[in-house]
Amino acid sequence: MVGQQFIAQLAGHPWFRITWLGASQRSEGHKYRDLTWRLPTPMPEEVADLTVEQAAPGRAPRLVFSALDANVAGEIEQAFAEAGHIVVSNARNFRMDPFVPLLIPEVNPDHLSLVPAQQQAKGWSGAIVTNPNCSTVFLAMALAALRQLNPTAVSVTTLQAASGAGYPGVASLDLLGNVIPYISGEEEKIESETKKILGSLQNGHVEPHPVIISAHTTRVAVVNGHTEMIGVRFENMPSREDLLNAFTSFWGRPQQHHLPTAPAKPIIYMDEANRPQPRLDVERERGMAVFVGRLRPCPVLGYKFVALGHNTIRGAAGAAVLNAELMSAEGMLD
Amino acid sequence: MVGQQFIAQLAGHPWFRITWLGASQRSEGHKYRDLTWRLPTPMPEEVADLTVEQAAPGRAPRLVFSALDANVAGEIEQAFAEAGHIVVSNARNFRMDPFVPLLIPEVNPDHLSLVPAQQQAKGWSGAIVTNPNCSTVFLAMALAALRQLNPTAVSVTTLQAASGAGYPGVASLDLLGNVIPYISGEEEKIESETKKILGSLQNGHVEPHPVIISAHTTRVAVVNGHTEMIGVRFENMPSREDLLNAFTSFWGRPQQHHLPTAPAKPIIYMDEANRPQPRLDVERERGMAVFVGRLRPCPVLGYKFVALGHNTIRGAAGAAVLNAELMSAEGMLD
Amino acid sequence: MVGQQFIAQLAGHPWFRITWLGASQRSEGHKYRDLTWRLPTPMPEEVADLTVEQAAPGRAPRLVFSALDANVAGEIEQAFAEAGHIVVSNARNFRMDPFVPLLIPEVNPDHLSLVPAQQQAKGWSGAIVTNPNCSTVFLAMALAALRQLNPTAVSVTTLQAASGAGYPGVASLDLLGNVIPYISGEEEKIESETKKILGSLQNGHVEPHPVIISAHTTRVAVVNGHTEMIGVRFENMPSREDLLNAFTSFWGRPQQHHLPTAPAKPIIYMDEANRPQPRLDVERERGMAVFVGRLRPCPVLGYKFVALGHNTIRGAAGAAVLNAELMSAEGMLD
Amino acid sequence: MVGQQFIAQLAGHPWFRITWLGASQRSEGHKYRDLTWRLPTPMPEEVADLTVEQAAPGRAPRLVFSALDANVAGEIEQAFAEAGHIVVSNARNFRMDPFVPLLIPEVNPDHLSLVPAQQQAKGWSGAIVTNPNCSTVFLAMALAALRQLNPTAVSVTTLQAASGAGYPGVASLDLLGNVIPYISGEEEKIESETKKILGSLQNGHVEPHPVIISAHTTRVAVVNGHTEMIGVRFENMPSREDLLNAFTSFWGRPQQHHLPTAPAKPIIYMDEANRPQPRLDVERERGMAVFVGRLRPCPVLGYKFVALGHNTIRGAAGAAVLNAELMSAEGMLD
Repeated sequence: MVGQQFIAQLAGHPWFRITWLGASQRSEGHKYRDLTWRLPTPMPEEVADLTVEQAAPGRAPRLVFSALDANVAGEIEQAFAEAGHIVVSNARNFRMDPFVPLLIPEVNPDHLSLVPAQQQAKGWSGAIVTNPNCSTVFLAMALAALRQLNPTAVSVTTLQAASGAGYPGVASLDLLGNVIPYISGEEEKIESETKKILGSLQNGHVEPHPVIISAHTTRVAVVNGHTEMIGVRFENMPSREDLLNAFTSFWGRPQQHHLPTAPAKPIIYMDEANRPQPRLDVERERGMAVFVGRLRPCPVLGYKFVALGHNTIRGAAGAAVLNAELMSAEGMLD
Repeated sequence: MVGQQFIAQLAGHPWFRITWLGASQRSEGHKYRDLTWRLPTPMPEEVADLTVEQAAPGRAPRLVFSALDANVAGEIEQAFAEAGHIVVSNARNFRMDPFVPLLIPEVNPDHLSLVPAQQQAKGWSGAIVTNPNCSTVFLAMALAALRQLNPTAVSVTTLQAASGAGYPGVASLDLLGNVIPYISGEEEKIESETKKILGSLQNGHVEPHPVIISAHTTRVAVVNGHTEMIGVRFENMPSREDLLNAFTSFWGRPQQHHLPTAPAKPIIYMDEANRPQPRLDVERERGMAVFVGRLRPCPVLGYKFVALGHNTIRGAAGAAVLNAELMSAEGMLD
Repeated sequence: MVGQQFIAQLAGHPWFRITWLGASQRSEGHKYRDLTWRLPTPMPEEVADLTVEQAAPGRAPRLVFSALDANVAGEIEQAFAEAGHIVVSNARNFRMDPFVPLLIPEVNPDHLSLVPAQQQAKGWSGAIVTNPNCSTVFLAMALAALRQLNPTAVSVTTLQAASGAGYPGVASLDLLGNVIPYISGEEEKIESETKKILGSLQNGHVEPHPVIISAHTTRVAVVNGHTEMIGVRFENMPSREDLLNAFTSFWGRPQQHHLPTAPAKPIIYMDEANRPQPRLDVERERGMAVFVGRLRPCPVLGYKFVALGHNTIRGAAGAAVLNAELMSAEGMLD
Repeated sequence: MVGQQFIAQLAGHPWFRITWLGASQRSEGHKYRDLTWRLPTPMPEEVADLTVEQAAPGRAPRLVFSALDANVAGEIEQAFAEAGHIVVSNARNFRMDPFVPLLIPEVNPDHLSLVPAQQQAKGWSGAIVTNPNCSTVFLAMALAALRQLNPTAVSVTTLQAASGAGYPGVASLDLLGNVIPYISGEEEKIESETKKILGSLQNGHVEPHPVIISAHTTRVAVVNGHTEMIGVRFENMPSREDLLNAFTSFWGRPQQHHLPTAPAKPIIYMDEANRPQPRLDVERERGMAVFVGRLRPCPVLGYKFVALGHNTIRGAAGAAVLNAELMSAEGMLD
């Protein structure tokens, strides 16, 4: 799913052009048009006639996007980085590596300065830059907006969409009319990745943010869109207006650079009592914004609210493309 | 939905027999078999030939169950209580009345002692006894099991089923492939009702339990079964074994009296990582148990776990029937 | 739903501009932005500040689109037509009126010649032009493509989406994980409307096409997109290639005139064994094409195939807008 | 799924007791309680401690039920039959074998007389008896009820449940809010199996019934229950009352013998305009009856109606158990 979403995001991109496709042995040697396309938009013509090659450096261009499965991504991405490629990856293998930026362009663009140290430490002429796990992105962006208010503890319950599990992913017998209150490894990722993303650079490494995070993840019968119920405790209780202002005024380098896929505003606050909702909101802003609503006091933690994001766009392929756009705008792909 | 579930619960009941049906003007005068029956089990023969009468005292038996809408329940239930009827109600109107028991038989059977005070204060020869809101029941039972460990703060996110909204309830366009992150009035009910249920009787009134509760409620595409993600802070951090023991050893007067619809164990702890789930578990134990799983440390509050219950059975009609059974067993219906 | 879809279709339209909104008493006097918007695309800015007026002629422009409920559409549409308005209606009230075109621009543009007779017979200075019921459109377009092969009998089973029932429409309790094998009045509409649409003009009236049609309609848990399983008997058994050619070469006056919302090809034949599918295909071609697949012999009738269309676009609001575009292109709105 | 349904059907059976479980290598050697149980009812205690053995004759009892995958069922079932076992199979491999009964006890119990010929022709001391494909059963039972009215052509569109595809079966991304208008091999099975089931024994083999059948199969977002829209042409047009009588008076040897899992009436006709429905009806009669409704004239074929059945019970495991019960009642297991 994420690989196809990459192609959908990059089709007609003003800066990048898809010239090469690499995949596992099963798809190798096939024209892309002969593979099964599972998105509701048509397969872009510009990739239909590309032949899928082995996922190995060699004929690949310098910038490669990786939607590889975690069980092969580690080795293959390293081979590309060693061979001089800039690997912009959605895989989890290198996310927590101390030399690898876990990047959200609006949140921690300064973490890109890890790249030279990464190249030196690993002896790579290329580099690896990662984006977070889908459910992490939306939480991390919401918390980044609130960062100056000093959040100290966060409780989040996610209601995650089927597309987050890839294809074939969750069996329909498990999801029809059901809730699965568990996603393997997901809670750990949210708890650790968010702290790294919000962390500060100190002496060439990322010092994780001290906020304490507790995640509870569930899968629900939704196609696209992770909904997150978030409670936050702050060092000093801010006013509701402080939080509202923080959400609505939040922006960052993607907006400053007018990056091609950057949303006009990274966070959109919705006033209606029953929003955001996956079916009504997740496709807005081309899936690149985080939608927040229902900000109100929480008797236990201080404040609570809802966040929603598109898991295969802002939570995966779109996140990686925005990462590459930022690197390009800052001269790192020259 | 709840009215029909009442009939399903009471059909073939060893102690109670349905002899009278009262409803709003729209149904008045119809044979029950001519109304639309929406449960997957067939309409019990024993009610099919009853004629629906006006919901007013007079020809009604002493014990009446109420599944009335809140907009009419207040007035009608009071009229029945004044006329000497014991009203076992699922409506919310009297739940927070200081003289009305908000009863879960395993949790606060002693609150039934409010009834004489109620009769005196209101001047009623009958009485009203209520059961909690559906999403409250499962939380309150789980917390009651943990009560001796001194919970001080609770955060709960609910994923509630469509049947909780009655019929026609939520439009399919709003729920298909969607999450609605808001249910009107529901969070307030959970927060206030739970404290009353867990509260202690002092000088003839209920002193709410001091636990702080924060609720976040959502509606998901499930037919029956509310799933709740719960985090709890305790006065002194207990061991995981303490909590497990508390859940598995929990029982109460329904089990002691062997009440007809009492589950053998009010709380069933499930060890599988991905349970409980509505589709697989909610109909077990005839819908009368609370299923708990995934007990694990919570970095923010101390412990977190999942609870699941059948919203129209243990969360509504079954709750009321169990209330009546307890009152019968304790001689209050004689 | 259809009213909102009208606004979405007309927003930014190159020929038409929304200048007036009329509705029932409940919405009258409200800014449109204060009403609940239920589409996943944002409410177009150009209507947000319009104030909803009474659905009556007077301040309305000459061309009005009607998405009125059938229980009020008859009287109101007639009042508009009498007052000189061109009413392009999605309501069913006048569809079978012998003087009213039941128009699909690719199929029966010549039926527009009923309008002068309509004006004379009814004494209207305006006129009413209707589009078919949503499930009729896709069948009628498929059959129109096959018309020259002389179809004599048609059996169709529909699997219709929730949005076809409007809002709130079908209760989620009725549709979640379910099939409802009945839609009131729908089978009769398909059977009669299709014959009128395919009928020929003779002496100023429409002679229904002699094809015999049997419809079986069901509601399924789909948001948008009616899927239809169609079997057809022909006077003389054509070859499969004849049918394929008929589908793929089908086009009409909307394509000839390059009408703004006309699809490039009205029928798109899909070769994949398991297509078309609502979730993957219904939004393609801006919802204005009919997708056909699985053409194969039928042992009983001769041939069978699948058709799919977007019920609130090509099946309702988009159909009406295309009707108005055709009328404009042919000078009927001058 | 079907294997687990077999166990659920056989648990507590008055005539049969599960003493042995055989499976593929992956499960071999495990206690059954250690395998994943996916039914909403608890795993029966009587099988929990059985150890799964290799699916080969030897230690197995004489009567074995087979829910094997078609890719291994052929070889394994033959080995059992050769070794003297009575194999009551749900697999498709031998269904169309001229010596193997394709049995529905109410429809063609006389086909059991193929068994001696089978044993002689194959040189087996045991035997194989099969039940039909799930979507075939409900059609064949409905047609059997109408057999004396001489049906000559049948058109059926199925809306099939997810559980019919086994586990994991259909990906939730393919089924959520969607219709898949194709099920591999299913239409051919319905068309050929039904003719064999309705066929008559002539000189020791089954002469297929001459009725012409056209099937169109789809998968919908339903957990259990195949809905079928059926049109039938008769040699001489009967009255609607003739058909109604045929449905309601239909019964057979299972009812005559009072077989333990036989429904009181094999076909239940429902008068409500919008019934039968999977969610409301499929679990009734313990999943063993076929529910029929909406009988009305069909302009193309003569009559049309809806049929519904439980695909993993009457369409699979329950069908096989009823086959074994019939064989037992008729002395074939002695």
